[in-house]
Amino acid sequence: MPPKITTELLRQLRQAMKNSKYITEPIQAYIVPSGDAHQSEYIAPCDCRREFISGFTGSAGTAIITEKHAAIWTDGRYFLQAAQQMDKNWTLMKMGLKETPTQEDWLLSVLPEGSKVGVDPWIIPADQWKHMSKALTSAGHSLVPVQENLIDPFWTDRSARPSSPLIVLGLNYTGMTWQDKITSLRTKMADRKITWFVITALDEIAWLFNLRGADIEYNPVFFAYAIIGRSSIRLFINGDRMADPAVKEHLQLNSSSKPEFEVQVLPYESILTELQGVCGGLGPKEKVWISDKASFALTETIPKIHRSLTPSTPICLAKAVKNATEIEGMRRAHIKDAVALCELFAWLDKEVPKGTVTEISSADKAEEFRRQQKDFVDLSFPTISAVGPNGAIIHYRPLPETNRTLSLNELYLIDSGAQFKDGTTDVTRTVHFGTPTAYEKECFTYVLKGHIAVSAAVFPNGTKGHLLDSFARSALWESGLDYLHGTGHGVGCFLNVHEGPCGISYKTFADEPLEAGMIVSDEPGFYEDRSFGIRIENVVLVVPAKPKYNYRNRGSLTFEPLTLVPIQVKMMNTDMLTQKERDWVDEYHKQCREVVGAELERQGRHAALQWLIRETQPIA
Amino acid sequence: MPPKITTELLRQLRQAMKNSKYITEPIQAYIVPSGDAHQSEYIAPCDCRREFISGFTGSAGTAIITEKHAAIWTDGRYFLQAAQQMDKNWTLMKMGLKETPTQEDWLLSVLPEGSKVGVDPWIIPADQWKHMSKALTSAGHSLVPVQENLIDPFWTDRSARPSSPLIVLGLNYTGMTWQDKITSLRTKMADRKITWFVITALDEIAWLFNLRGADIEYNPVFFAYAIIGRSSIRLFINGDRMADPAVKEHLQLNSSSKPEFEVQVLPYESILTELQGVCGGLGPKEKVWISDKASFALTETIPKIHRSLTPSTPICLAKAVKNATEIEGMRRAHIKDAVALCELFAWLDKEVPKGTVTEISSADKAEEFRRQQKDFVDLSFPTISAVGPNGAIIHYRPLPETNRTLSLNELYLIDSGAQFKDGTTDVTRTVHFGTPTAYEKECFTYVLKGHIAVSAAVFPNGTKGHLLDSFARSALWESGLDYLHGTGHGVGCFLNVHEGPCGISYKTFADEPLEAGMIVSDEPGFYEDRSFGIRIENVVLVVPAKPKYNYRNRGSLTFEPLTLVPIQVKMMNTDMLTQKERDWVDEYHKQCREVVGAELERQGRHAALQWLIRETQPIA
Repeated sequence: MPPKITTELLRQLRQAMKNSKYITEPIQAYIVPSGDAHQSEYIAPCDCRREFISGFTGSAGTAIITEKHAAIWTDGRYFLQAAQQMDKNWTLMKMGLKETPTQEDWLLSVLPEGSKVGVDPWIIPADQWKHMSKALTSAGHSLVPVQENLIDPFWTDRSARPSSPLIVLGLNYTGMTWQDKITSLRTKMADRKITWFVITALDEIAWLFNLRGADIEYNPVFFAYAIIGRSSIRLFINGDRMADPAVKEHLQLNSSSKPEFEVQVLPYESILTELQGVCGGLGPKEKVWISDKASFALTETIPKIHRSLTPSTPICLAKAVKNATEIEGMRRAHIKDAVALCELFAWLDKEVPKGTVTEISSADKAEEFRRQQKDFVDLSFPTISAVGPNGAIIHYRPLPETNRTLSLNELYLIDSGAQFKDGTTDVTRTVHFGTPTAYEKECFTYVLKGHIAVSAAVFPNGTKGHLLDSFARSALWESGLDYLHGTGHGVGCFLNVHEGPCGISYKTFADEPLEAGMIVSDEPGFYEDRSFGIRIENVVLVVPAKPKYNYRNRGSLTFEPLTLVPIQVKMMNTDMLTQKERDWVDEYHKQCREVVGAELERQGRHAALQWLIRETQPIA
Repeated sequence: MPPKITTELLRQLRQAMKNSKYITEPIQAYIVPSGDAHQSEYIAPCDCRREFISGFTGSAGTAIITEKHAAIWTDGRYFLQAAQQMDKNWTLMKMGLKETPTQEDWLLSVLPEGSKVGVDPWIIPADQWKHMSKALTSAGHSLVPVQENLIDPFWTDRSARPSSPLIVLGLNYTGMTWQDKITSLRTKMADRKITWFVITALDEIAWLFNLRGADIEYNPVFFAYAIIGRSSIRLFINGDRMADPAVKEHLQLNSSSKPEFEVQVLPYESILTELQGVCGGLGPKEKVWISDKASFALTETIPKIHRSLTPSTPICLAKAVKNATEIEGMRRAHIKDAVALCELFAWLDKEVPKGTVTEISSADKAEEFRRQQKDFVDLSFPTISAVGPNGAIIHYRPLPETNRTLSLNELYLIDSGAQFKDGTTDVTRTVHFGTPTAYEKECFTYVLKGHIAVSAAVFPNGTKGHLLDSFARSALWESGLDYLHGTGHGVGCFLNVHEGPCGISYKTFADEPLEAGMIVSDEPGFYEDRSFGIRIENVVLVVPAKPKYNYRNRGSLTFEPLTLVPIQVKMMNTDMLTQKERDWVDEYHKQCREVVGAELERQGRHAALQWLIRETQPIA
């Protein structure tokens, strides 16, 4: 694909930067972040403004346009892609390289004295605003909020904001009514002397109200805001979605419910004026809770003296610790997912030797098998289906022009997952259909050792996930190898496949401590550029452990795999495994055989069952 | 010891808080931090104001006095001690317990509306000021700097600020002239477009000028400030120390040196006015570098627009990476230290069965043996000599009233170190003179496994120390055990035994990456309250490692023990060790025998040599 021609678009944007229709004084630079107004990781097409103006489609990247320059900052995953997708109007700023200036430093170097830099206050998170504003102010410039987005006026074919029908989740899926969730939230608000809580993250709103949507691909969320008071509930949501009788009944919109659970439904766009109203009526000591990652527009509306910023909102924390019903749902979802993957691998074993299976057709087949399972809703992210060298591209997605054929000679990595009504899955397996080289097996075994070291780790209650990250790397490090991504992320329950506030990564320190009921991924890897990629990923549940002692009564935790898909023994150099590691593999495979085997039997999937039995034999 | 009676002292302080001689408007609270004006960990007697006003002698703790209350915040190490040392005027605030309010929250709960809270701006670090000021301001109060310390006027027997003679260190100890250090610093200043660098940490000044002092016990530093410009050097130092001909010659105070190395010597107290002068003459884009932990008084003097705060100063970083001469000095110091400890342990083996050795006499004996070694200057910290239950008190220091006798029945933990002119040492060994219980051996072996896991770890260049912390705990965690302190700290070279900016701890995230030449301690432990304490500590040097592969040419690192003192095999349950761990122990002991054995031989210390040979036999 040739790069997008952006000359005319940039001309129009630069005109808007001087147009008194949008701004009181001309601005000398305009920042286009890549997010939406809800800090979503995945965004809807109508929010892809950075992509529209630059042509660069990657998931992360910020554009800055001045009168003379246009530049994009993105990270190592996207250097090649960004360079291919952007025309000569754009300068690519490769983040992470020493010679690359930060956005602030670059602005200071190109701006004329006393410049104004504009940004859409709905899209820039308050913490980023603060950082950028400080840097600009200290050099005599200023950061100004431009209320109307400057790209929208000339984005003529911009699609409408999605407004998909809502799914109501019953107690059998959620384990807790939305009223009980609100009550629990209000208790936390009272503890902290908080009068109002402004919810901006889409998955938090979906979780709180036991509703799901389909406004963003792969993410079962819907565009909304909410303001929860001590005795009032305001839900800001567009469209006729509230007309659905099931939703009406669920939220008790007609019935005479208790006044503290009466949901006031307001237009999505009215959040700002309503929040202004709320803030206007605040008593001297009243506080409003909001995430420190919320938009500058909403954050700034709350007077500083009434503002209580929090890195992990109480809903984010409550959502992360799954209740018994959610855990059972996640277990069911992972068994169904394993059934689909056993079918896929059995099918691949048969078809790959014929030379007819490609990355794309394999991914399609995986989706086909998943769709056959009960309560399937969607995939949970675009399938990474990667043969040989494509496996070394960590966020690879097969396209017709890169599509390789699965063969007996190259490694195959498939990272895929689904949204079921009872849970979200995410699993990666790396397999060989012929005979792997000794080096491939060696590297695979280091990764496996790391996977087991995390999965079998016992650690005190209250340990933060980032303290476990090195366990996953130790075997690789000892041989001089490593991988340049985190080891695990939180996983939602029929919600976003990536969620906070816990995870396992060397990159964060502000993660919340792990506790029983949290669910994270365990996915170390190794990538040999231009050759192959290896990743072994299970979703695991944090569970209490019962070691010999119990120091200071703190209690201990460990992980229990929810993913139950065999790990290819052919890829292991079993001589490199300790007895403990061999036992772990055998025990894991025994569980796969018993639990998934029973379900395959029940569903009458005999070929897949044969494959499962063959792949779960003890490693001798 | 009975608690200190503080009624009269508090009365006088509360009077001062309203006395217009010191303050323009009365203050409703006064904060007494525990530090000095240089953020020193250990402080001189004249700076122990918090101890003077409260009676509490611990190394960490902040006092806050209001019109009606007096409270002290300290951490778990000191709960018991603080409770014993303070009278009923004081409330002990146990940090780390959930029910304990923070200093800010407590102030907000007790202060009348619109209160003023005072603090000595020379003692409070700028980052703490900012934090406290923000909390107070947001509740309608204010934090105000009180220029004259309010305790000094009635602290009648306050000692003078020490002014010990200086020691000049030659190239044979430092490996680099102070002029070359200044040149290197100026290069870094030029890179960052910095015009002035204000040095406030005492060890940084000592390192930069290749001088040592004895103003603070155990820390070979001297009270001073320095301001380094692109072509000027100002040293702020009191007393007649500059009259010493050796110092004069070293700093070339008389000789006509190059103008950019001319040292202008100014009175210690004149730092503020000189810095004001410097700031008054700054051009519009000129920047002044200062540590973000420097005092509020100095930080505030630099106008915000010219201020460049840094968490790790360039000197802190340069000092952490030891050069070849410093490394050789550290090696020599550790061999001498091992000689002294071999003497001690040989002597203890003979004397303990007689029942005449106490914690204090053993510590004294260790000091006596160290003093016999060449270039001995002082201990590097108060010796922790602890029998049985005293070993469970992590920062124990034997006192006549707690002094236990070493016996054949209890564990003995000794954590000690020295300042030699060529290096600083810090070593902990835990030994049994009779027959340890199976449980004591089990716990010791977990700690040993953790010690080895860190010491033998291979990790990529650029890894931060906090990522290695869990390696030290893994074996303990697996059995439900843990220890509540970090695993390692940076160690100076004939400087502070604790230094930044690197270390190995779960508590920090802002540590600087480890690099070859850095020196840290490796000291996991286990403490059974009221029973025993175990710690195994070596000082280790970061060295390049050469594993099989070299991913992305990053290179790998590992540790090499500088401490060469046998680890008691009797305490090990060798069945719990892997072959790799046994090999590590044998190889370590072989090195102790060869290197320290040769020195014991040379010094004619035959009994100690016999002990060393006996204690370093392979573990079979």
